[in-house]
Amino acid sequence: MTTIGDGASLTLSWRELLELAEGFLTAHGLSPEQARALALSLCRAERDDSRSHGLQRLPGTLETMAHPAFNRKADPRAEMLTPAIIRVDADYGFSSLAVERGLPPLMEAARSLGIAVLAVNNGFHATALWPVLEEIAAQGLAGLSMNPTHDWVAPAGGSGGVLGTNPIGFSWPRRGRPPYVFDFATSAGARAEIALRRQQGRALPPGWGLDREGRPSTDPAAVLAGAMLPFGGHKGSALATMIELLAGPFIADRTSRQSALFDDGARAAPCHGELIVAFDPVLVGAASGQGNDAEAAAEDLFARIEQQGGRLPGARRHAARARAKTEGISISRPLHEKILALMP
Amino acid sequence: MTTIGDGASLTLSWRELLELAEGFLTAHGLSPEQARALALSLCRAERDDSRSHGLQRLPGTLETMAHPAFNRKADPRAEMLTPAIIRVDADYGFSSLAVERGLPPLMEAARSLGIAVLAVNNGFHATALWPVLEEIAAQGLAGLSMNPTHDWVAPAGGSGGVLGTNPIGFSWPRRGRPPYVFDFATSAGARAEIALRRQQGRALPPGWGLDREGRPSTDPAAVLAGAMLPFGGHKGSALATMIELLAGPFIADRTSRQSALFDDGARAAPCHGELIVAFDPVLVGAASGQGNDAEAAAEDLFARIEQQGGRLPGARRHAARARAKTEGISISRPLHEKILALMP
Repeated sequence: MTTIGDGASLTLSWRELLELAEGFLTAHGLSPEQARALALSLCRAERDDSRSHGLQRLPGTLETMAHPAFNRKADPRAEMLTPAIIRVDADYGFSSLAVERGLPPLMEAARSLGIAVLAVNNGFHATALWPVLEEIAAQGLAGLSMNPTHDWVAPAGGSGGVLGTNPIGFSWPRRGRPPYVFDFATSAGARAEIALRRQQGRALPPGWGLDREGRPSTDPAAVLAGAMLPFGGHKGSALATMIELLAGPFIADRTSRQSALFDDGARAAPCHGELIVAFDPVLVGAASGQGNDAEAAAEDLFARIEQQGGRLPGARRHAARARAKTEGISISRPLHEKILALMP
Repeated sequence: MTTIGDGASLTLSWRELLELAEGFLTAHGLSPEQARALALSLCRAERDDSRSHGLQRLPGTLETMAHPAFNRKADPRAEMLTPAIIRVDADYGFSSLAVERGLPPLMEAARSLGIAVLAVNNGFHATALWPVLEEIAAQGLAGLSMNPTHDWVAPAGGSGGVLGTNPIGFSWPRRGRPPYVFDFATSAGARAEIALRRQQGRALPPGWGLDREGRPSTDPAAVLAGAMLPFGGHKGSALATMIELLAGPFIADRTSRQSALFDDGARAAPCHGELIVAFDPVLVGAASGQGNDAEAAAEDLFARIEQQGGRLPGARRHAARARAKTEGISISRPLHEKILALMP
C-alpha cells in the first residue's frame, strides 16, 4: 500500500481505497457482492471530498452489522410490481446492492414509459444519494431520490422529533459534462455537523434545533438530546413530510419514527425504504412532436445560473474527482489507523 | 344577487359566486367550458379564504385573454404518449380545462401502474395547485404538482432573475378527513405579497430579494425591479431548478425565462407547462405483500405532527370552507364593483 503523505493524511490510489473498504467489510463477514456495492459508494464519496459519506462511515458499519436483523448474506433480486414499478427487497442487508440490482430494470422501464419507480425496501442505508443519481444521469435519464432516516427533526411549529433528516436528490443529464446533481438533507443542518460541533465546543447557527423542552437552542448537545429543525421553515417541513410519505407508506416501508423504533438502540444505520424515480427527458418531446428542445432549454438555464456567479451543485465534487485522478485520494491518517485497528 | 354584508364586503352563495366568475369570463368571449373550469378553481380559492388565488385574479384574465396567442376557444384533448404519460395540449387557453380533461386518464393510469404523469403544455396558468391536488386525493391517490412561472427569482449566490417562483404542491389522501395538501412557492416570499407591500409602503423581510445591482434589499419596489430570492438558500434554489427542468424541458415546454420571453410585455398569466404526478399509495404494499400498513403509518405521522402543535398545511383552508357552507362566501365590495365595472 502506498503511504505517501504528511503526518495527518496519506494518499491512496482508487484501487487501494476500494481494496481497503472492501477488505474491511468482507473481513467482517459481509458477502463479497454486498461489500463491493457499499465500498464503491463510500469510496466515491471519499474520492470526491464528500468526507461525511466517505470512509469515516466504515467503522460504523460494525454497529449496523451487529443489529439483530442485519443479513450479511442478503442477495436481493429485482421484481416488477407493475411495468412502471420495480421493487427490490434489500432483505436487511445494506441498501447499496439492492439499489444496484434495481437500476437496470428501472432505467429500462423509464426509457419505455417515460417515468418509472424503483422501490427499495428494508435496507440499512449508509450512503449519499448522489452516486446513484449520477449513474442514472450517465444513462441519459433524470433521477429523483429520497428516503426517511430517524425521527430526529421537529416539524415547523412543533417541539420534538417526528420527521427524519430526509434527504432529497435530483440529477439531470448533460452531454459531454458532469450531470446537474443535488443531494441535501431537509434538516437545517446535518446531524454529523452538529455532532462535530459538540466535539469542538462550537455553537450551532440559530434555527438548527430545539432543546428537550422544545425551546430554540444553539447548544449542540442540547439539540442532539432535543430535536433538529427543518430547513426553510414550514416549506422545508412540508417537503420532509412528503418524503416520509413517498419513501415510507407509498412503498410500504417504515417512516423515520418506525425506523428509529426498529433500531431499538442498536445505533445501526437507519433501516428503511428508498424511492428512486427515473424520467426520460426527451420522450415527451419526441412522442408529442413539441418543438421545444429540452437539452438547449436546460443548458441555457445552467449557463444563466453560472454566468451570474450561482454555483451548480456538485461542482466541488467534480473538481475533487479531477484532482484525485492525477494526485490520488488523500485520507486522514487517524481514520486509516482506526480502520486497520478494527480489522478482525 | 344577495347583497348582505357591511360596507367593505358582501356575502354570496357558492352558486352566486360561480355565476359571477363564469359570467364575467363568458361575457369576455371565453368558451363556456373554459370559463367553467377556470371559474371553479378561482371560486374554490375565494371560498377557502385563499384570496390571492381567488376572484382578485378575474380582472387580470382580461390581460391574459388579450395576449396575441391566447385561444378563447381552446378545446384540449388528452392523449396517451405512453401507458404512464398522459399529455394535454392546452392549446393556448387557460390551463384549468386541460388539467380537468387530463385528470381521469391520469388517475386511471396511476391505479394500474402505481405512478403516472400528466403533462399539460401551452396553458396560461392563473390558479393555485391545491384544488387539483385535492381532487386527486379525493380519488384515494397521492399527487405531486409543479410548474415554472416567469424568471423573477435569482439563484442562491446569483444576482438576477433566472428561476421562476416555481410552486410545488403535494397531496396525500386521508379516509374520512380532508387530505394532507401543501402548495407553496419556492421563492422566499410571494410576488403578490411584495406588490402589496409596495402599495402599503411596508418593507420586506430580509432575504426576500435583491435590487437591480444584485444587492440585498428590503425595498419592495427595488426587489420588483431587481430579483426575488428562493426560500431556504441553496436548497430552495436547487428545488426551484429541479422544477424548471421537470415541468419545463422534461415535458417539452418552456422554462420560466422562455415563458417570460413569450409574454413579451403582455402582462398575461405565464404560459407554460405543468407537471402532475399521481401515485397509488396502496399498490406497492398490496403487490409486494409487505406487511406495513401505509394508512396507519401516515395517520400516525400526521397525529404526531398535530399533537405537538405543528399545523398540517391546508387546515386554515378547510376551516374557511366549513364556515362558507353555513355563512356563505364574503367577497370584498371594491373587488365586486371592479368586476361588474369591467363587464363588457
